[in-house]
Amino acid sequence: MSEIPYKIYLSENEIPSAWYNVRADMKNKPAPLLNPGTGEPLKAEDLYPIFCEELSKQEMNNDDQWIDIPGEVLDFYKMYRPSPLVRAYCLEKALGTPAHIYYKFEGNNTSGSHKLNSAIAQAYYAKKQGLKGVTTETGAGQWGTALSMATAYFGLDCQVYMVKVSYEQKPFRREVMRTYGATVTPSPSMTTNVGRKINEEFPGTDGSLGCAISEAVEAATSQEGYRYVLGSVLNQVLLHQSVIGLETKAALDKIGVKADMIIGCAGGGSNLGGLISPFVGEMLRGENQYEIIAVEPASCPSFTRGSFVYDFCDTGRVCPLAKMYTLGSNFMPAPNHAGGLRYHGMSTILSQLYDDGYMKATSVKQTDVFAAAEQFARVEGILPAPESSHAIKVAIDEALKCKETGEAKNIVFGLTGTGYFDLVAYQKFNDGVMDDYIPTDDDIAKSLAQCPKL
Amino acid sequence: MSEIPYKIYLSENEIPSAWYNVRADMKNKPAPLLNPGTGEPLKAEDLYPIFCEELSKQEMNNDDQWIDIPGEVLDFYKMYRPSPLVRAYCLEKALGTPAHIYYKFEGNNTSGSHKLNSAIAQAYYAKKQGLKGVTTETGAGQWGTALSMATAYFGLDCQVYMVKVSYEQKPFRREVMRTYGATVTPSPSMTTNVGRKINEEFPGTDGSLGCAISEAVEAATSQEGYRYVLGSVLNQVLLHQSVIGLETKAALDKIGVKADMIIGCAGGGSNLGGLISPFVGEMLRGENQYEIIAVEPASCPSFTRGSFVYDFCDTGRVCPLAKMYTLGSNFMPAPNHAGGLRYHGMSTILSQLYDDGYMKATSVKQTDVFAAAEQFARVEGILPAPESSHAIKVAIDEALKCKETGEAKNIVFGLTGTGYFDLVAYQKFNDGVMDDYIPTDDDIAKSLAQCPKL
Repeated sequence: MSEIPYKIYLSENEIPSAWYNVRADMKNKPAPLLNPGTGEPLKAEDLYPIFCEELSKQEMNNDDQWIDIPGEVLDFYKMYRPSPLVRAYCLEKALGTPAHIYYKFEGNNTSGSHKLNSAIAQAYYAKKQGLKGVTTETGAGQWGTALSMATAYFGLDCQVYMVKVSYEQKPFRREVMRTYGATVTPSPSMTTNVGRKINEEFPGTDGSLGCAISEAVEAATSQEGYRYVLGSVLNQVLLHQSVIGLETKAALDKIGVKADMIIGCAGGGSNLGGLISPFVGEMLRGENQYEIIAVEPASCPSFTRGSFVYDFCDTGRVCPLAKMYTLGSNFMPAPNHAGGLRYHGMSTILSQLYDDGYMKATSVKQTDVFAAAEQFARVEGILPAPESSHAIKVAIDEALKCKETGEAKNIVFGLTGTGYFDLVAYQKFNDGVMDDYIPTDDDIAKSLAQCPKL
Repeated sequence: MSEIPYKIYLSENEIPSAWYNVRADMKNKPAPLLNPGTGEPLKAEDLYPIFCEELSKQEMNNDDQWIDIPGEVLDFYKMYRPSPLVRAYCLEKALGTPAHIYYKFEGNNTSGSHKLNSAIAQAYYAKKQGLKGVTTETGAGQWGTALSMATAYFGLDCQVYMVKVSYEQKPFRREVMRTYGATVTPSPSMTTNVGRKINEEFPGTDGSLGCAISEAVEAATSQEGYRYVLGSVLNQVLLHQSVIGLETKAALDKIGVKADMIIGCAGGGSNLGGLISPFVGEMLRGENQYEIIAVEPASCPSFTRGSFVYDFCDTGRVCPLAKMYTLGSNFMPAPNHAGGLRYHGMSTILSQLYDDGYMKATSVKQTDVFAAAEQFARVEGILPAPESSHAIKVAIDEALKCKETGEAKNIVFGLTGTGYFDLVAYQKFNDGVMDDYIPTDDDIAKSLAQCPKL
């Protein structure tokens, strides 16, 4: 075999033509969504007022192993995919490890992350259903940016409710969305009932993701021809993101390499779920074994310190209930947390797989995450997103373990995106004023106590 | 022939192994640099106190057609090269043009531009010469970012003098450089004689590129083991940037396409020179014909409204004199100019080629540039740098001309970088508060009157 190149690119006709639905291979299916009022399991049609019909069906589809990627979505994928699988030669050399490190880099598109993979799919189905537009919330703005690119492409209106503190502190993210034609409203706003109510109750509030979700859902359901879309957590999102794992698997196969270990950062689970899906599929079908590690922030440790229970998906409690590893829907990471991945719960698919022992989870402190990010940037060139750097940190740790044992493991991790819009956090780290926060057992117990009693 | 893909990638072993030196094929060589004191032509060794020896030799080398790219530089290139040549299918469709539009995209690296191609070469030669570090100036920060990545890779110290107003208004650029280990000093500073003098004469000054150059040169020559490096204008820089054109040519050859028209933005000329070098080489050798268009801002129109004379390369007048199209070394674009490409002069190589009729030049207004940028972003996904968007604007204009004439021209343009750090300018455009500025004939005449009398 010839030497493995730095970047293993697939050709455009090797982009997968179907998404892989890991649920089809799971013996223990993810628990169904429940109606928050009645506690009854939801059917696809119950979701139609909120989500597009096709996406609602995908949300509930536990049976079909493969779902064709529509041609229009594939065409868009071709503008920025296949994304490279990179052999981290320079990082290996810097660490002096016998391990072979690979990363799937999803940051080479203007949204700066993997979020675009699902945004374009969701926009496509909205267009196909004849909708006028979509609404969504965004915190730091990664998802909102991806969605605005996707809606610009399909000529749909895009209304983004952006958490007020981010709207003010991240004007550049906001401006990218505007450049792609989206309307960006700081949340809580005075344009929705729920926004007005929250502004009245908490004058001068900075907003929260939970509130922005509630506003976006209200905006979608109160306007003719609009639906709500979401960038993580949902089964449909993991389905779309399977393109990451499928390409990773195809690239590894091309160079004749079997991954020993697959590492991904985990917030709501969109990247991790997409990256590992085809590998977990092989495990579920008894064809192969992989060591899979989910990495979460120590300040928001849903896998490692949460409970596997039914919980609200949003702080506003308007969305269906989901059974997931959760810290409680009103859990909030400390304000000094700059590393992203701040969702209180975890994808129901990943929660079930974790509970069934198909993956491990670990949590890392943000100062260690930024130190790893900087080390990586200086040798591999790419300035990573803080979220992605959680995976970098653990990949480096595992590579250093290999240095001790002399094992030449094949370590694969997901580099979900770039950190161009996270430089306030990098500055804190560079200035030595970033600190760590780890919630107490009491913090978590209090928050978990508010999960619904079913 | 099979259908042309969206992205035409070369493989890693198709990265050129030598840079192409267009000067070797020029009958009229670029005019030599002159000693600003004596007016005598400079020799390579005259530059050794300022530049690395190998780079000084490259600066003076009008004879060797090819210069080998060192293996260590090639290894670094492999982390982000070959860069894709993209077929702009979506833009063509949006314009309804029969033209085939291609762009060479140099933005897929953390520095966000083509500047890295020369930064890594310059850092390599500095390392090879056993230097401790390098100094440079940066305005908006693109070059400083590229250089800090390159010096981090080779373990060199990097001292960047950043124009004070940019240092304060572009904290994120500054922070990327710091993340890569560079020391960033706002200029004018109190760390150099020239900085202290300027601060004394003009208390509270915002700084200028000319002043930052002077500080960087002083810092290089007053510290043991340091040299000064520059990101554009110089012959050595165009040499390194020829990798852009060579890859473009190779990718076009691969798909059997001959470019009819090649369009590039032009500030100091590093991108344009690199992109067109191998194509101009064919013209110089009488092998082929291309229509080449340099695009510059209407607010800083050195080709279209400047004079082809010897001028100072810096406002501080410490650098050698160069014969080039210039607006005069104290010409400054209006403060409202947000589109980059603000250097008063133009590469001596490009100036000679332009004077000899090998290319055309045109200037465009910045509001038109940003409109083109937004149009491009919405269909092609990529958020372009304002600099690059000058080329986009003219590529769109030419494609629309083809729509009128029905010609299916092959239009190739250079997409030099991304606009993630230019969102203040995008915001101005989105808010409708960006205006245009075109210098009067009198402005330019006054500035040109200060060129040296030889």
